[in-house]
Amino acid sequence: MAKDKDKKQELIKNPKGTRDWSGEDVDLLEDILAQISRVFRRHAGKKLDTPVFEREEVLKGKYGEDSKLIYDLKDQGGELLSLRYDLTVPFARWLAMNSNIKNYKRFAISKVYRRDQPAIAKGRMREFYQCDIDFAGASDPMMADSEVIAIIVEVFESLEWTGRYTIKLNDRRILDGLFEVCGVPEEKIRTISSAVDKLDKMPWEEVKTEMVETKGLDEAVADKIKTYVTRKGGRDLLEELKKDEAMMANAKAKQGIEEMNTLMDYLEAWGALDKISFDLSLARGLDYYTGVIYEVVTEGSAPVIADGNSVAKEAQKQGRKEKKALGEDEDRSNDPSVGVGSVAAGGRYDHLVERFRPNADIPCVGISFGVDRIFSITKARIAKGETFSYVSSNAPDVYVMAFGGGGFDGMPKQRIQITKILLDAGLKVEFTYKKKPKPQVQFKNAENAGAPFAVILGEDEQAKGEVRVKEMGLPDGHPEKEGVLVKIAELGAEVSRRVNAKSMVAKTESMSVS
Amino acid sequence: MAKDKDKKQELIKNPKGTRDWSGEDVDLLEDILAQISRVFRRHAGKKLDTPVFEREEVLKGKYGEDSKLIYDLKDQGGELLSLRYDLTVPFARWLAMNSNIKNYKRFAISKVYRRDQPAIAKGRMREFYQCDIDFAGASDPMMADSEVIAIIVEVFESLEWTGRYTIKLNDRRILDGLFEVCGVPEEKIRTISSAVDKLDKMPWEEVKTEMVETKGLDEAVADKIKTYVTRKGGRDLLEELKKDEAMMANAKAKQGIEEMNTLMDYLEAWGALDKISFDLSLARGLDYYTGVIYEVVTEGSAPVIADGNSVAKEAQKQGRKEKKALGEDEDRSNDPSVGVGSVAAGGRYDHLVERFRPNADIPCVGISFGVDRIFSITKARIAKGETFSYVSSNAPDVYVMAFGGGGFDGMPKQRIQITKILLDAGLKVEFTYKKKPKPQVQFKNAENAGAPFAVILGEDEQAKGEVRVKEMGLPDGHPEKEGVLVKIAELGAEVSRRVNAKSMVAKTESMSVS
Repeated sequence: MAKDKDKKQELIKNPKGTRDWSGEDVDLLEDILAQISRVFRRHAGKKLDTPVFEREEVLKGKYGEDSKLIYDLKDQGGELLSLRYDLTVPFARWLAMNSNIKNYKRFAISKVYRRDQPAIAKGRMREFYQCDIDFAGASDPMMADSEVIAIIVEVFESLEWTGRYTIKLNDRRILDGLFEVCGVPEEKIRTISSAVDKLDKMPWEEVKTEMVETKGLDEAVADKIKTYVTRKGGRDLLEELKKDEAMMANAKAKQGIEEMNTLMDYLEAWGALDKISFDLSLARGLDYYTGVIYEVVTEGSAPVIADGNSVAKEAQKQGRKEKKALGEDEDRSNDPSVGVGSVAAGGRYDHLVERFRPNADIPCVGISFGVDRIFSITKARIAKGETFSYVSSNAPDVYVMAFGGGGFDGMPKQRIQITKILLDAGLKVEFTYKKKPKPQVQFKNAENAGAPFAVILGEDEQAKGEVRVKEMGLPDGHPEKEGVLVKIAELGAEVSRRVNAKSMVAKTESMSVS
Repeated sequence: MAKDKDKKQELIKNPKGTRDWSGEDVDLLEDILAQISRVFRRHAGKKLDTPVFEREEVLKGKYGEDSKLIYDLKDQGGELLSLRYDLTVPFARWLAMNSNIKNYKRFAISKVYRRDQPAIAKGRMREFYQCDIDFAGASDPMMADSEVIAIIVEVFESLEWTGRYTIKLNDRRILDGLFEVCGVPEEKIRTISSAVDKLDKMPWEEVKTEMVETKGLDEAVADKIKTYVTRKGGRDLLEELKKDEAMMANAKAKQGIEEMNTLMDYLEAWGALDKISFDLSLARGLDYYTGVIYEVVTEGSAPVIADGNSVAKEAQKQGRKEKKALGEDEDRSNDPSVGVGSVAAGGRYDHLVERFRPNADIPCVGISFGVDRIFSITKARIAKGETFSYVSSNAPDVYVMAFGGGGFDGMPKQRIQITKILLDAGLKVEFTYKKKPKPQVQFKNAENAGAPFAVILGEDEQAKGEVRVKEMGLPDGHPEKEGVLVKIAELGAEVSRRVNAKSMVAKTESMSVS
């Protein structure tokens, strides 16, 4: 029996690398997702909701080495299926199936699945949310791209992250041209690119060692790469590149540089130019990017964990250890929820749909927000006392009670009728599921629920068509400490008025604090 | 090559029994889910979002014969996992894990997975939405139960289904007592109960044949059962039972009848009594119910399909055929999205949490809404010209264009600036991703997008700090056919005013139509 019980206890947990979203966490998550959706909708984004699994062949060969992280379903007869790894490939599959669609602004908010080594502190889960918008269809150079970057700015501004994020920006064509100019052999370009991408996490010397010793690059070539990839800035850096004869003689680099100029013009029009950092070390992991790439980093705002280290630092340490343990040598910078400080990432990918439908010719550009990480950072800021205007309370507005003396029946039907009146006024209402609950039990329940108001029924008041409305937690001596009598006919309007007035006061107070 | 191409074409589909939610469908689905969430929140429901998969042991042994429909994940090392089959068992697992929680009003909106034979017309999918609210924790008889039924009424009223649904109501204790009174042997009670549950889909004679011939029930017993289970009503039926000496002498039946009386008193207080039908034939499939059970049916409102048959009828035919093909003899009435005309179902289950944590003592009562089916019926009503006040348009509000003569550069930066001004005013905005698009292309794009307004830039107007605001589709001769000039400084406010005014007119018009 004891053994049986132990066994039962052991079963009651959720799968490794997953979490149950409940309480204030799920409410904050929903508030964040609502803000992001609102921005997507303003930009005429249309929602797409695909199945959690895809036919195995759809995912196969899309994620390079990370394909080993895909969850497969058991073969129970019928199709072979896998859980989605991201939201981009299902979108490309959907575009390929709907060949009448030439243009589409699609957004998606869903969980994705990676059979990775979980690292909670690093925010690396096996099931996590992604929140993507992608513009499919023809665009003159950088027009759609600039709008995606404007969306990034609007999202973080609407989340009240002003001054706390930077959009790192680069272009695959500039990067590839740069490697050619420096003399990287064609076949080494992707692997050298992936080494460069680690410059945000390790010093140049380590990256150089990887290039020269692990990847066999000529040391002189590595040194030449350094003169480029350690540079970042804005229009100033762009002007330097325009004067770089070697770069401008390379067709790819030249096109990339000229279009980066166009992009900066458009970003200026969007009012987004001051949020970007043109960063020649940004490379991004995924193979399928063909033009502009970007990654959003947040510095100094990573949540602080118990021992005083920032999660970012801790994650870095832990990440390296785990990578070693897993024998991984590939960076996973394609995952916006993984990179230290990276909270969103994306770029242009012009040929993915063709993988499903030859000659489809549907160029795409998009962004994926790592919502779990945005959530963690926001939660840490709230814990430090910051307030956010979009974070709503989901506590009940009012708790319905009944008090009475000897022979009192608890008024269960009357409590239901009053509850219904308050619900119909749009209020959030609770009462105690006891036929005849004690006053102190009802007050305790109201307090636990966080209701700011109580409506109290009594037989005498009921006979006069009245109930008592009481604001919870008023100090002794307050003129309304014992509540005020309100006609039942006016109850919905009166309680609504009081609830709104109180929430206005709370808002003003929190604004003067922040 | 041709073969290769064929192979690629073959791959681009979504898995059997699943669908991609896009366009107006996903918007309508979201509107429905938002209405339901709002009702749940008013009743102090708290959201819970659990992982899509559970450890295999959590689901094992919870669904009887239907366990064969569970999707398992492949064993890739580590835990054995299965996709969730419903939202109830994950909730019970979560309650068992969080032993500090004694009371909880949890709601959940998520997809669930059943490896069933798909039947699109019947609305039987392998991946479909459920939308549940469950109240966990002690309640005096029928208090929490009555609130769950009040929620059902509020949900369908808020979805504007007034007069189109009936809540069938029964109690497991009345049903079990009734079988005992009629002389059904103890060990046959569950199987006879499941036969009775089919009375909404087949005539009594067929059900009787199943009882007597397949399940070996004495014919006289079956005839006695008939005298009960063909009865439905309200308080009248309850009064008849109260006078039934045999029933009142059975302890279970007596308790069920007395509490049904209490429930009806409370439902009257909720204003919900006229929505219910006390129906002695309602049995429901799941084993774990212990008290009140209910199922929401909608008659005459099932969507009509091409050949003029109602989906309900068609589904019935098809369902029987498939069940035969699958060799199934168990009814799947526990699935609210399957039963013909059933759009929600639930009941009280007092001992499920104990399956995970012995002596947990957390009684529960809840309801699950079959959202896919609610969606289909609502969509069919919209197709017939009905309107719903909560259904929102997600078309852009305004399309930004630029026109000009020779040497005109297309004003891409200026279009972006104007777009940004309109976005900042909270409007939904689009423009064409061409540097220098032709006027007719821009108008066509605006029309395709469904934008009711255009903002048109021109070099002359720009020089004066003005743009042209034009309502789309005005008749020839209308004074504003060519649009009106608006100062850029006033543009956000002016377009917002016009968009709101137009949507008010549209609302009023649709109200006078309906």
